[in-house]
Parts: sequence; C-alpha cells; structure tokens
Amino acid sequence: MSHHEPTNADARPKRLQGRPLRVAVLGHGAVGSQTVRALTDHNAALAAKIGAPVDIAGIAVRSPRSGVPGVDDRLFTQDAEALVTRGDVDVVVELMGGIEPARSLIVAAMESGASVVSANKALIAEDGVDLHRMAEKQGVDLAYEAAVAGAVPLLRPLRQSLAGDRVLRLMGIVNGTTNFILDRMTAFGGTFQAALSEAQQLGYAEADPHADVSGADAAAKMAILARLAFDTELAADEVHYEGIEHITAADIAHAASNGSVIKLIGICDRTPDGVSARVHPMLLPAGHTLASVRGSYNGILVEAEAAGELLFHGRGAGGPATSSAVLGDLVEVGRNRVAGLTGAHQPPAAYLPVRTMEHVSNRHHLSMLVTDRPGVLSEITAVFGRHGISLATVRQEGLGAEAQLSVSTHLATDAALAAVLSELRSVDAVREITRSIRMLSGTTPDKDAGR
Amino acid sequence: MSHHEPTNADARPKRLQGRPLRVAVLGHGAVGSQTVRALTDHNAALAAKIGAPVDIAGIAVRSPRSGVPGVDDRLFTQDAEALVTRGDVDVVVELMGGIEPARSLIVAAMESGASVVSANKALIAEDGVDLHRMAEKQGVDLAYEAAVAGAVPLLRPLRQSLAGDRVLRLMGIVNGTTNFILDRMTAFGGTFQAALSEAQQLGYAEADPHADVSGADAAAKMAILARLAFDTELAADEVHYEGIEHITAADIAHAASNGSVIKLIGICDRTPDGVSARVHPMLLPAGHTLASVRGSYNGILVEAEAAGELLFHGRGAGGPATSSAVLGDLVEVGRNRVAGLTGAHQPPAAYLPVRTMEHVSNRHHLSMLVTDRPGVLSEITAVFGRHGISLATVRQEGLGAEAQLSVSTHLATDAALAAVLSELRSVDAVREITRSIRMLSGTTPDKDAGR
Repeated sequence: MSHHEPTNADARPKRLQGRPLRVAVLGHGAVGSQTVRALTDHNAALAAKIGAPVDIAGIAVRSPRSGVPGVDDRLFTQDAEALVTRGDVDVVVELMGGIEPARSLIVAAMESGASVVSANKALIAEDGVDLHRMAEKQGVDLAYEAAVAGAVPLLRPLRQSLAGDRVLRLMGIVNGTTNFILDRMTAFGGTFQAALSEAQQLGYAEADPHADVSGADAAAKMAILARLAFDTELAADEVHYEGIEHITAADIAHAASNGSVIKLIGICDRTPDGVSARVHPMLLPAGHTLASVRGSYNGILVEAEAAGELLFHGRGAGGPATSSAVLGDLVEVGRNRVAGLTGAHQPPAAYLPVRTMEHVSNRHHLSMLVTDRPGVLSEITAVFGRHGISLATVRQEGLGAEAQLSVSTHLATDAALAAVLSELRSVDAVREITRSIRMLSGTTPDKDAGR
Repeated sequence: MSHHEPTNADARPKRLQGRPLRVAVLGHGAVGSQTVRALTDHNAALAAKIGAPVDIAGIAVRSPRSGVPGVDDRLFTQDAEALVTRGDVDVVVELMGGIEPARSLIVAAMESGASVVSANKALIAEDGVDLHRMAEKQGVDLAYEAAVAGAVPLLRPLRQSLAGDRVLRLMGIVNGTTNFILDRMTAFGGTFQAALSEAQQLGYAEADPHADVSGADAAAKMAILARLAFDTELAADEVHYEGIEHITAADIAHAASNGSVIKLIGICDRTPDGVSARVHPMLLPAGHTLASVRGSYNGILVEAEAAGELLFHGRGAGGPATSSAVLGDLVEVGRNRVAGLTGAHQPPAAYLPVRTMEHVSNRHHLSMLVTDRPGVLSEITAVFGRHGISLATVRQEGLGAEAQLSVSTHLATDAALAAVLSELRSVDAVREITRSIRMLSGTTPDKDAGR
C-alpha cells in the first residue's frame, strides 16, 4: 500500500471525525444492485471493519427505480453529477462501465474530495495513469480490484504482496466469456457460433459480444495488470490483441489430436528489451494448469523471481463475485477515510520500453495443404531455415494427391513467422495455409515440482 | 488494512522525516540470508517502493558470521536484544522461528517502537492475539504473510480483498513436507518411512520431522487462517490435528482403487453453531482441485459467500519464496513508517464459539475384515443405523472365510462415528477395523462450472 503525501494543504484527505462514511453508488445493474444489497444486508459487519457506520448517500440510475427491498426509494437519483458533487460523499463506487459518463463523474467526484472505487476495466485501462495522478493530487484513493478477474484477488497481491519481489511474467485467462465458448467447443465439438449462442442464452455473453470475443476486454485487463506487475506506464493501445472469432471446430479437433487445447491467453512479460502485453489464442498442452480452467472461470499464473509460480483461480465475473471485490476495496478506502489518509492507489513508477508484437517470440503451430510429391517437404522446411526458424516437429498425413503438413516451430518472432508465411504463399506446392496459431513456449523452471 | 489510532500520545507511530528506513534482521538461515540478499541486491527498487532509502541496521546470528557477499561483517551481531532495543530501528524482521527467544525479542522490539515482520507461524499461532494487542498499544505494525503458505498471498487477500465478503470455509494443503510425502507414496507406492527419508534427503523435511508429519505445523497455520477468515480469536490449541505417520502404502492403494487420493487437509469453517479449525488426512476424489497439488506445493481453496470459490496455489516454503512474502510485508510496513502511521495489523474482532472435533461432521470411509457368513452385513449396517449414520456405499470382497468390507457414510459427527467404531469392535463377526479416514464432504455449489 502506497501512502502518498498530499501535494498541497487543501488536498489533505478528509477525516470522518465520528460521522458515518457516506457512499454513493453509480449504477444499479448486476454488480450495482448486488453491492447495494450487501451494503444493507451486511451493514453492521462492514461498519465494524471500516471503523464507522456506513450510509448510502445515493444510487445513480438511468431510469427511475423504486421498491427495492431494504432501500429507501428516495436514495435513487437520475442526477449522478449532482450526487457526486454535493460535497458530503466520502466514497463514490462507480459501477456503470463504459468510458463516458463514468470518466467525467469520477473526475468530478475526486474534485469534490471523494475517494473512488471502480469496476470499470475499459476506463481504467484507458485512463488509469491519469486518474491515479488526479487521485494523488486530490488526496483521495482510487481502487479497482473488481476491474480484473472479478472476485479473484489479483491487483492487491501484485501491488502489495509481491512489492518486494520482481514479477517476471503473468499469464492467464482473464475473460470468462471466451473461455466458456472455447470450453464448450472443446467439450462438445460445435462451432464458434453455436457456442456463442449458448453463452448468450446462459448470460455468459452479451447481446453484442464483440468486446469479449475480439480479445479487447482481455487486452484492457492485461494493460492494467502489466502496469501493476512491472510498475510501468503502459498505454491501453500498446496491448496487441487477437480474438477467437476465427477458431473453428476443426482447429479445436486438430489441437486435441495433438494433446492440446486452445485458450484465449493474456500474457505480459519483461525481457531486457522491454515489457510486452498481448492477448491471443494459444495452444496449451492439455495437462497445463491453465488448460484446466473451466467454463467462465478465470485463472492467472504469476511468475516472480523469488516467489516462483503462483496461481490465482476463481470467478471472473457475475454480480456477487464482482461485488465482493468492490466491497473489499470499499473497506480499504473507507478505513483510510476514517483514519484521514490515502493509500489504496499506487501511481505507476516509470516508463519501460514496450516491445511491439513483431518482436515478441513464441513457438508457432502451422498446418497447410501441400501437393504430395517428392521434394516438397525439403522445399518447405528450407523456407523456415532461411528465416532462422528451426522446427520442433513435422507431421505429414497423405490425403490422396494432397497431404496435410503440420509443423511446430521453436521460438520465433512474429516478424520472422510473417516472413515465412509470406514466402510459403508463393511456393507452388503449398495449396493453402489452413492454420497458424501460437503455442505455449517455455515452461517454468520448477515445472516438475509443481502441478 | 486496518488503521488503528494509537491508544496514547506516546505511542504515535514514528515517522522517518527524510532519514533511511532502518531494518534489523533476526536470523540468517535459509529465509534470513535470502532476505538479506534481496535487501542488498534490490535495494534501489525496494527504496523506490517504500519511499525512503533502506539500511540494514544489523543481522542477529547465533554464531559469528563474516564474508557474506555484499554485507559488511560489522552488521552481524550475536546480541539480538541489544539490536532490537537500541531505539533507532524502524522494522525488525524476525526469521528465527520457534517460541523463544523470538517472542521476547518481538516484544522488546515493539516496546522500542519498531514495527515487526515475522515468518514465525508457531509463535503467531500461539501468541498472535496478544502480539496484535501489543502492536496496537505501541502504535507499530505486525505483519506475517510469510508465516502461512510461503510466497502465496493469502493473509492479505483474507484480511483486505475479502473484507467486504463473508468467508464460509477455507480448505487446503498448507504443509509442503507432508504433501511431498503423500505425493511420493501415491506415485511410487512406497511406505511412509521411505517417502519421509526421501523428503529428508531432498531437504523437504527436517531431521526431526515431528512438527510437520504430526500435523502440528499445519494446525498452527490453520489457527492463523481461521482468525483472519472469521475475525475471531481462536486459540492455537483449539485446532484439532492428526498427522500422516500412520498412513500405509495399503491405505494409499485402497484410496486409488476408489478413485481417490489421501491428502493432509486443513479446514476451517463456520456454521450457526460456531467456527471450527482442524487438520487431518482426508480422502479426496482424484479429480478434485486439491488432489492435483503436487510435491511440496501449497494450495488453498477459500469459499466466500459472494466471491464463490477461490484457489491460491504456489510454493509454500523455501528461502526465496518465503523471503518474497517477507519483503512484501516489509514494503507495506516500511511505507507506513514513512507516512507515520500503522495499519498492517488487524486485531481479531470477536470471540466466536468453537465447535470441538466431536461435533464436526464429515463423511467417513471405513474398511474392516469380517467373517464371511450370511447375516453379517445386516448386523453391521444395523450398528450404523442405531447411531443415526446412513451409508452411502457398501463394498464387500470375499477373501475365503473372511471378507473385506468397505463402507462410506453420509455426513456424521466424529462423536457418532466413535460410538459406531466402539460398538463394531464388540461385534463377533468384525475381526478387525483396518481403516477409518474422513472423506471430503459436500461440493461447492458451482462445481460444474468450475474446474
């Protein structure tokens, strides 16, 4: 926990001086309503942990609401701005999502002296660095454990528990929708569209699934995680991402025939050349820890120099799970308010160079249809050799006049692979490149001792 | 994080006022030497996170030491008491282990105004409640993330991330030595003694393995975890524990034939009748998450009302992993010192009634040798019925004149099972009760969606 001195006397954190902690909630959807319910149902327990009674100052909603059990109708308001700027609110809990008006309301809340708890990954990914600076300037807290991996405590361990260690790599499944879809395709063999429809029917995917299936949601989370893991200012648009829309039933079956599964994996790591954060589908051995992350769950491996490999696993979304993380932040921020200090925020420390995707190395798996005649294999493998890529495995299956050729490479940069793909397309014997997917590269040093 | 007001003006937390943070390290074994190395190797990074330069004030050792790379020989001292009471030390990092002199030195350090970071599970289990009170009175911090599950961030998530949720149950593998032994017995079929010897040769077990194999070490950790999970004052001796010394190769093989593994499991849970914490061998289905915790690793499932089931997994011991947790605490406590406040401690909030083991319900698995004649089965099952225990499965295998009868029960208290065992021993047809072990009872509500 970072305890920053206010930058000027006006910005001294406010202290409750015996009065209740006043909490404004913005949004009353799945997470908002669950959070409000917990604030009323567990009011005494929360007050005991915070060290002051907890009052709901108001709940901002888009359309009028009434008759919610345990909540006075008069607490609902459609004027969010008036709520956050009225000056007597200690903590604003932003659960609206999206960039605007969430950003303006958070800024207005901070300017009015309120600390902020948010579950808004898109906004924090885009503006987290600036919002942290503003929080520090205003002498208020900004906390957002719920923005990544829902109920799974991940940001706090990264910024506190591992503060004396050196995080080397973080790799995981941080989007439950895509994991659910890939899991269904793996278990039942259907198409992406069928699995997506099922996810939508079960409420695991939105009517407009684009942010999830494109990898954009996971990329926002990886931006937030990379900043905390490496103490750096990484911009949201520096995270390369690819989605799962193009994964076919044949891809999944082909992976299974190689003892592998396809997962949408977010990775951030650091090398002497800089940090990198990216999201893309990846082949994992079926026995890998992350391969066993099922359904809409999230699972994140953190590899640190001294701590070794840590696994965090739990529900990444859903009203109750997300509200658990929101309330954990509220207790921390509320306690700080009681004591008259700040601390839940931690501005990024430095700018580290960012490796672009073309310089990131992975193992790669390629499948192609080739003409089945002598000399083709050596012609094709020579292309890899010319670009400095060595092959780990080669498998050819005859299909009459054609053959399916599957190769896996040793570590190669995206740039080198792109050059190979480009050259392969001009080789006559290569009819079609049917599949190109990254594979998990490298294992942890202590894999044998681990799970 | 709890920010407690000092109880009197003298006890106001000290503030650095621009000078370096002075850290005394007690002990220079595996964890101590690793911690000292990190303090020197990563000095600049730690200073940046703490917000002040970090100086080693001294290192207390039992026998003279010199020539440690990067460490001035004059920093080593055999007079730990003089080191912690000299008055200019900000943080004392206690890595000696054992009850005395660790306890006296921690008390003396607090009385001299130093905050304390400890990895001493035995001491914190025994005296944690009193030591927290003393820390609060003295206006200093007491932190001990490293005391449980080494590098795995567990205490901080419990006291902070889940502070707004309600922990229902915590269940896990918190002793790497016993897990290593059981894992070897499962993989290679040998005896407890053989696996213990191997663990000792590889450094996973002490020369005197009693504290580990008896379950005492795990029980100390469960006392600490139960206090944080339930905000209660649980005494160390209120944790029931049983060890693995009596687990035979036949027990392991029998478990495998039932699709199960035997693990030493620590559990704490709460029911309307009170809280309970215990450690004992347990049959787990081979597909259970905790069944796949390998070697000396630790894995802990936390079940909370809103968050659902969370898994934490990583290295539970070893110098580097434990020092990672120590340094995380040091950064938090050091930051507090820079800001002139306390907060890393969290005194227990309340006393909740503790259920004794006889009132705890589990499923049970029993094996017995019985005379193979008509009527025996109904005679035996009647005994269970008389004590209100219903059976889930019954399996009988003939062995000539005798048969092996294996039964698994539905939920039954230890008291009821003890009554059954006592009565069975007086049944003529029961030659010998060869095996009685608890089974995992109940599954999480969302098991299907999870891993």
